[in-house]
Amino acid sequence: MKRKIIIDCDPGHDDAIAILVAAAHPGLDLMAITTVAGNAELEQTTLNALKVCEIAGIGEVPVAPGAGRPLVRNREAAPAIHGSSGMDGPVLPEPSLRAAEEHAADLMIRKLMESEGDITLVPVGPLTNIALAIRREPRIVPKIQEIVLMGGGTFGNWTPAAEFNIWADAEAAQIVFESGAPVTMIGLDATHQALATPEINERIWALGNRVSDFVGELLLYFGRTYKQFFNFDHPPVHDVCSVVYCIDPVIFDCRFLNVAVETKGELSYGMTLVDIHGVTGRPPNMTAALGLDHGKLWDVIIGTLSRYGEGEG
Amino acid sequence: MKRKIIIDCDPGHDDAIAILVAAAHPGLDLMAITTVAGNAELEQTTLNALKVCEIAGIGEVPVAPGAGRPLVRNREAAPAIHGSSGMDGPVLPEPSLRAAEEHAADLMIRKLMESEGDITLVPVGPLTNIALAIRREPRIVPKIQEIVLMGGGTFGNWTPAAEFNIWADAEAAQIVFESGAPVTMIGLDATHQALATPEINERIWALGNRVSDFVGELLLYFGRTYKQFFNFDHPPVHDVCSVVYCIDPVIFDCRFLNVAVETKGELSYGMTLVDIHGVTGRPPNMTAALGLDHGKLWDVIIGTLSRYGEGEG
Amino acid sequence: MKRKIIIDCDPGHDDAIAILVAAAHPGLDLMAITTVAGNAELEQTTLNALKVCEIAGIGEVPVAPGAGRPLVRNREAAPAIHGSSGMDGPVLPEPSLRAAEEHAADLMIRKLMESEGDITLVPVGPLTNIALAIRREPRIVPKIQEIVLMGGGTFGNWTPAAEFNIWADAEAAQIVFESGAPVTMIGLDATHQALATPEINERIWALGNRVSDFVGELLLYFGRTYKQFFNFDHPPVHDVCSVVYCIDPVIFDCRFLNVAVETKGELSYGMTLVDIHGVTGRPPNMTAALGLDHGKLWDVIIGTLSRYGEGEG
Amino acid sequence: MKRKIIIDCDPGHDDAIAILVAAAHPGLDLMAITTVAGNAELEQTTLNALKVCEIAGIGEVPVAPGAGRPLVRNREAAPAIHGSSGMDGPVLPEPSLRAAEEHAADLMIRKLMESEGDITLVPVGPLTNIALAIRREPRIVPKIQEIVLMGGGTFGNWTPAAEFNIWADAEAAQIVFESGAPVTMIGLDATHQALATPEINERIWALGNRVSDFVGELLLYFGRTYKQFFNFDHPPVHDVCSVVYCIDPVIFDCRFLNVAVETKGELSYGMTLVDIHGVTGRPPNMTAALGLDHGKLWDVIIGTLSRYGEGEG
Repeated sequence: MKRKIIIDCDPGHDDAIAILVAAAHPGLDLMAITTVAGNAELEQTTLNALKVCEIAGIGEVPVAPGAGRPLVRNREAAPAIHGSSGMDGPVLPEPSLRAAEEHAADLMIRKLMESEGDITLVPVGPLTNIALAIRREPRIVPKIQEIVLMGGGTFGNWTPAAEFNIWADAEAAQIVFESGAPVTMIGLDATHQALATPEINERIWALGNRVSDFVGELLLYFGRTYKQFFNFDHPPVHDVCSVVYCIDPVIFDCRFLNVAVETKGELSYGMTLVDIHGVTGRPPNMTAALGLDHGKLWDVIIGTLSRYGEGEG
Repeated sequence: MKRKIIIDCDPGHDDAIAILVAAAHPGLDLMAITTVAGNAELEQTTLNALKVCEIAGIGEVPVAPGAGRPLVRNREAAPAIHGSSGMDGPVLPEPSLRAAEEHAADLMIRKLMESEGDITLVPVGPLTNIALAIRREPRIVPKIQEIVLMGGGTFGNWTPAAEFNIWADAEAAQIVFESGAPVTMIGLDATHQALATPEINERIWALGNRVSDFVGELLLYFGRTYKQFFNFDHPPVHDVCSVVYCIDPVIFDCRFLNVAVETKGELSYGMTLVDIHGVTGRPPNMTAALGLDHGKLWDVIIGTLSRYGEGEG
Repeated sequence: MKRKIIIDCDPGHDDAIAILVAAAHPGLDLMAITTVAGNAELEQTTLNALKVCEIAGIGEVPVAPGAGRPLVRNREAAPAIHGSSGMDGPVLPEPSLRAAEEHAADLMIRKLMESEGDITLVPVGPLTNIALAIRREPRIVPKIQEIVLMGGGTFGNWTPAAEFNIWADAEAAQIVFESGAPVTMIGLDATHQALATPEINERIWALGNRVSDFVGELLLYFGRTYKQFFNFDHPPVHDVCSVVYCIDPVIFDCRFLNVAVETKGELSYGMTLVDIHGVTGRPPNMTAALGLDHGKLWDVIIGTLSRYGEGEG
Repeated sequence: MKRKIIIDCDPGHDDAIAILVAAAHPGLDLMAITTVAGNAELEQTTLNALKVCEIAGIGEVPVAPGAGRPLVRNREAAPAIHGSSGMDGPVLPEPSLRAAEEHAADLMIRKLMESEGDITLVPVGPLTNIALAIRREPRIVPKIQEIVLMGGGTFGNWTPAAEFNIWADAEAAQIVFESGAPVTMIGLDATHQALATPEINERIWALGNRVSDFVGELLLYFGRTYKQFFNFDHPPVHDVCSVVYCIDPVIFDCRFLNVAVETKGELSYGMTLVDIHGVTGRPPNMTAALGLDHGKLWDVIIGTLSRYGEGEG
């Protein structure tokens, strides 16, 4: 039986790869894509999601835009990592697909309330939409099978303390963490191991289908900005890790422990406090990924991307 | 032309009086009553709103329950001011009226989007519902004629720094304050002058109708707890002040100035910083009531309550 | 028997009057004047203290400079209330008196440790020196008879939440408040009633001695800036109130209650939370002045200033 | 020429080793040992420093006690890492040596003001004494050759965010970091590599002198608690790393970058934000050790401990 997921994203280069893998993997049923402001403004992230769907022929999955800004804090200038469009690099035509009328939070509420508790939410951007849905309709919480989020970690990237997605809306993260729903956090400890090395890039280009070429171009641009901004030799494909976790969780080194989020600090706003040594006395409240198997991760991603070529030629 | 208002409340003794005046005053069109957790749990405040409607024969106004907890912070134990039911004192039968199915935030969004920008929101409890509505549908902001809230002030009651309604959900207050909608804050500086003195109580009992007797009983209980808890000689009828402001704003001494809300402090969470002397350099962002005309206020309230007796006898 | 006091100050117009009254009143033994950065830089406040001593013929009291900046927070630009010299208005010659070599905190420690527990500290500027002394030598705490500070209150002046002296070094205030020494806080609730009205000014000018003329000039300048900056009709002589309290405490309306200071808030840093209604559950920890008798206050001040004329003519 | 250092410590097992290496290494001139509350109460840490001096025959170095509590925050219960005496394990006789009368901060001020700017401070406990000295006498700052502190890092131990020494007095750390003195931070990134492995223990026991046997016993106890509390296989000898840095800095991988300390957060108080990727825009303000050469480190430590045996037998 396929695992039902809703991806909530802000494409974003790695978001795009997450969508592509989620849509093509035979073990997943991608019920909807919802969008949020994060890597870029909502209009851009929604447009980018539609473009990704169009190039990959994902026509039947609704794309529902949600929150255009964080829940409480002010929206701050978007990162230079993804370019002005939020997904710079590959040149894509305007999509013919249209965004859904329904708000992301309403769509999630509706799908969850109609479900038998078998839907997994996969937020790979700021957690605003999930938090809004939970506060608007608390009865969805027991209906959520799992929330597999990309964000946080034992260290930061956007500040020395905080990872971008959590920092972008730490109050929303707090709402999700304290909701009572089963949460799995795929943070930087894992995703910084998900590097697109030259050998990986070669394997992707070798696939030679339209979608894999698109991914190749995404990684080319992403690699360049990660080198410039963070001095990384190879870019980490954060967001797709959450999707791969839904496919095969054993690829990840996970621990069940306490994670809290700082919403008050002057310098450390948005930090996730991952209690690895159990020093806080706070009980475990989520599963956190602290590492991953690089080879197996890319085998899943590349294997899935290869499916896009099956109908081609 | 009648002024269209939606009361968002957590009855609450003074909330009840606010509803009664709003429903009966010829200058107001009470379009809906929405409820929120605050003085008591949501189930209680909703039930109390229905009971008030029932006793006053307000059958046609929808009562829509909203948020059962604050947006971000944890809900803390409710105040001892209103008793365990949230409206202790008068004994009322179970109402035959039923709450609406629609969520408070959805109702506000729908009414506002359908409107011609002529609806005033009158929140007299924590601002959770308004904040949820604004974040869920930002397009309502330019549709809001005015938000006339009861809350805040230059001093506190629930803590030395903070008034209860703002303290109960300071993040929601911040969302409302920074929304761009025209806000009028009827805070403790004004409402602590709205005292139900013995002379006022006499005038209310003298009205002799069923609703005014109910108000008399509410004030009896409220006066007792205000004496016990705050050592006030007479109880202040906070919430109805916002309604009276909608009827006749000149009863209030108002200033257009900057008000910000503290969401970070350890001790001063929920404080409203009212910049009376213009020392912050922050531009004015709302109208704040700093006083009121006691005689005129009660003339409006008592005059309106007297209308309930017109069909009696 | 005379009451032994040490004034810790940052002259400052009202600081100057405090020194003048403390030095001349027969009930007080002014053991030392210590200075701190606050209204102006340390060099200025020390120089101003020396000038005040010189004009008043106070030759035998040591003037010991202390902290040039707050304990933890950064020193922020000084207020426009006192002019660039910290005591603009009257033109005074360079003093021939010299500051002591001993640091303010060391002087306080030495005097207190040598004492029989009969010295009262009268800080009327930021509390940095007192806090430094307490942390450097905790054994002084049981030796302190009383700390009668000017600062704080139930409202602010420098921000909507905070009074200047506490705001200027809230961490120092916290150290003093929690030290266990008996603290009396003469805050804005009292000092904003200590207004130099035209009638008071007339009485001061009528004294006609050199020192009273100096006070008249101080009030002229101070009145002008208080009008400009705070729109006060008459200037409040904050600091001298603490000295008058040492002379005759019954002039003040006092309550024994809990006062805490906010050191964490974003907007409310330096606020004193005065728990008038006992809502916090924190036990009383100090005496706070909430009002004063205007006539009696000025009788003490003017009566004391008149003594400066006794040797003249 | 020998490098002049003052060790400020709270022994503490690893503090003891730091003292032993500092006193015996021919490249160092240990001018004084000052003590602070931290791992244990001030009385204990002072007594432990004296015991270490006694066993090692360090008779001529003054041991001056300083602050018994943090600067601003409350002192919290001491860690279970070092036992109730602060240095459990080896049984030592009561020392005949006596602590100095002079306060730690005064001693540091005096030595620095008398110096030619050639003294290095080596704080390996909470930074309270250094902060007090800087605030009491700001003129010492340009006299400090370097502050080589043990504390902080890119991750925490006492909380998920904060290392113990910084967490124990984050306001003091902020004062030191912002003082303008040259600071080198030897944090957990480096010291968690300074593990006393079985092979290292063997080499220490093999030295066979009285002092090395004492170190062997210290490591036995320390290894046991580090296993219990943090699940470390081998204990890290944090504090001696700062001393070794003074002897041979090239043993450490260092970067010049910005480090700030969080003093406001709810959960992340005391965290050091180490801006490795230069994302904050704040200019570099200190040297931070991010790693060390395990072999060379222990060669220095063991080589120095071997000198204690030279006069024996």
